[in-house]
Amino acid sequence: MFSFKITHQDKNSKARCARLSTPHGEVETPVFMPVATQAAVKTISPRELEECSAQIILSNAYHLYLRPGLEVIEDLGGLHNFMSWQKPILTDSGGYQVFSLAFLRKYKDEGVEFQSHIDGSKHFLTPEKVIQIQKTLGSDIIMPLDDCIEYPATHEMAKIALERTTRWAKLAKDEYKKLNLSQTQALFGIVQGSTYEDLRKQSAKELTDLDFFGYAVGGLSVGEPQDLMYEMFSVAMDSLPQQKPRYVMGVGMPEDIFEAIGSGVDMFDCVIPTRYGRNGSAFTSEGKLTVRNAEFKSDDKLLDPNCDCYTCKNFSRAYLRHLFNSSEMLGLRLVSLHNIYFFIKLTQDIRESIKEDRFSEFKDSFLNRFSQLSKV
Amino acid sequence: MFSFKITHQDKNSKARCARLSTPHGEVETPVFMPVATQAAVKTISPRELEECSAQIILSNAYHLYLRPGLEVIEDLGGLHNFMSWQKPILTDSGGYQVFSLAFLRKYKDEGVEFQSHIDGSKHFLTPEKVIQIQKTLGSDIIMPLDDCIEYPATHEMAKIALERTTRWAKLAKDEYKKLNLSQTQALFGIVQGSTYEDLRKQSAKELTDLDFFGYAVGGLSVGEPQDLMYEMFSVAMDSLPQQKPRYVMGVGMPEDIFEAIGSGVDMFDCVIPTRYGRNGSAFTSEGKLTVRNAEFKSDDKLLDPNCDCYTCKNFSRAYLRHLFNSSEMLGLRLVSLHNIYFFIKLTQDIRESIKEDRFSEFKDSFLNRFSQLSKV
Repeated sequence: MFSFKITHQDKNSKARCARLSTPHGEVETPVFMPVATQAAVKTISPRELEECSAQIILSNAYHLYLRPGLEVIEDLGGLHNFMSWQKPILTDSGGYQVFSLAFLRKYKDEGVEFQSHIDGSKHFLTPEKVIQIQKTLGSDIIMPLDDCIEYPATHEMAKIALERTTRWAKLAKDEYKKLNLSQTQALFGIVQGSTYEDLRKQSAKELTDLDFFGYAVGGLSVGEPQDLMYEMFSVAMDSLPQQKPRYVMGVGMPEDIFEAIGSGVDMFDCVIPTRYGRNGSAFTSEGKLTVRNAEFKSDDKLLDPNCDCYTCKNFSRAYLRHLFNSSEMLGLRLVSLHNIYFFIKLTQDIRESIKEDRFSEFKDSFLNRFSQLSKV
Repeated sequence: MFSFKITHQDKNSKARCARLSTPHGEVETPVFMPVATQAAVKTISPRELEECSAQIILSNAYHLYLRPGLEVIEDLGGLHNFMSWQKPILTDSGGYQVFSLAFLRKYKDEGVEFQSHIDGSKHFLTPEKVIQIQKTLGSDIIMPLDDCIEYPATHEMAKIALERTTRWAKLAKDEYKKLNLSQTQALFGIVQGSTYEDLRKQSAKELTDLDFFGYAVGGLSVGEPQDLMYEMFSVAMDSLPQQKPRYVMGVGMPEDIFEAIGSGVDMFDCVIPTRYGRNGSAFTSEGKLTVRNAEFKSDDKLLDPNCDCYTCKNFSRAYLRHLFNSSEMLGLRLVSLHNIYFFIKLTQDIRESIKEDRFSEFKDSFLNRFSQLSKV
């Protein structure tokens, strides 16, 4: 059921196009995955996601395990049916959420103990249990439990965390084999190693030896300088198998996306479109635009005149500004919808540019135009 | 441009069907008007309203005058363009909002002085100014400034308020004529008189003598007992011209709607579908259902299996409960959308029943079924 086939390698960069096949359909990469942490892309309906040409979305094992709980999702026939989304879903393991949200964490060799950020209830997640959880969810692509650490971290701390991540990845893979999931779900490995080149290489090598269907790069976009993040993209991509899908987690702004793709990344996810949308920041071809700004008070221009989304086909900046000023939720919806459309359209355009061996030119022209509003 | 033609009179009740023509299209009555107080039906897009077969929506002169302000709406080409809704719009004058929201109100013969509920700024609204405001908005049906009072009110207070409402209605009509609006906007009169039969009759007679295109009944659904409200529906309808459109403001629950239509009411508006929707109360054919209830934890049934709306075609009660429990705005949207669809479909079904002279039978069977959930 699963395959990954590179369809075009850009002649002038490491960017490539590929086709990822899953039991719920095919995904053309590079691909941006909207984030549905709690089984909903914030404010957006599944129908709207389809209209934005979303190919695959991301959800989260930690969140769904805590609420509504696995029993509910099992009763409802799995995550796809639960949220009425029949295209591919990737679920993150929850390693990052245990690190960033849960209370009273205790990391042990066998797993991590914590208290729920929702109700303080105690839980113990092991690499095996995290695979079992994602089996119940029925997501197409699943992630092993990883040990996430803060930035900055010492080399020693980062090494301990990456080596634990490798041990857990092996236990996850064993459980995945034992449960015989290879026809229904694909398991990725997660590269850790903070901002240390040697550790990123060590992590990539150890995971490659374990042979996963694909590889994710975790522990980035957590506060490190942009140039270090970009260096880690490059180190990780050069250390991972070329013929496998590669995914950078939690990235990012348009320029980060270009940088990742230019390093050979195929997949990425980020909450930026919906988080910025709820704050009234719209991504346009000329840069980020804050719809509350007084300058848009009587601006009858469409949000982004170059965009074909529902919002941009129907509503002026003045109206969107009014909705935000009046605390009307429709405003959050309309700007979130536009931002998701914008990020997906950006990756569509990038795919076209790669197929025509003009990725670098497209990157330069896009980013040059995208910086216009910030220059004003 | 404006006409009102009764197309069928029910043989066994005062219910009737009619066709109301406006410059932005025709409206089949009896009609439910979703409420877009601040130029947006809360959480719902204009496209979704059209898919719910909404024929006409209600907005509010007081709110739009204060925010975004008339200059903005004028710059954007009027309210229809501003909110991207090209079907008919009715605007309320703001008399009720001055009474219920504004600070430091002082009623004078010439109008009402108040401070904005948003920023405390001082304003003085006169009957003439309220017509000018609605001219700028460009709504199809406009209302004169009225003097709303609380319930309970003494007979003396109610008489003073209704007589002021009549004087203001005359000034409104004079301004309406002076501005030559009859081809673009239709002006209604608003019947007041609290719960006093003699005052309701006096108000209806005085307004009828002034000859408006249609008539609204205000000052109901403000806390009075249901039987008094129903009595006032009946008194007002029997005192107003039969050949004119009649509108009861701010009503109501399904049984109130049946009662109003059975008294001869053609139009009504209410925030109930969206307000209840945001609280997770869904109207279904069997009654009101609270989606947060524990009983729906693993309920894979659609919200209302007898409904054809987007929500009911796609989402289980368990999923909607999860969205509310997780504070996901998508839940508010989906239940609000369903409720609007439900109220509009109810009035469609009522129109069909009137055309077939079986309004009373339909009322009985609908309300009997609608009481099932509350009996459990």
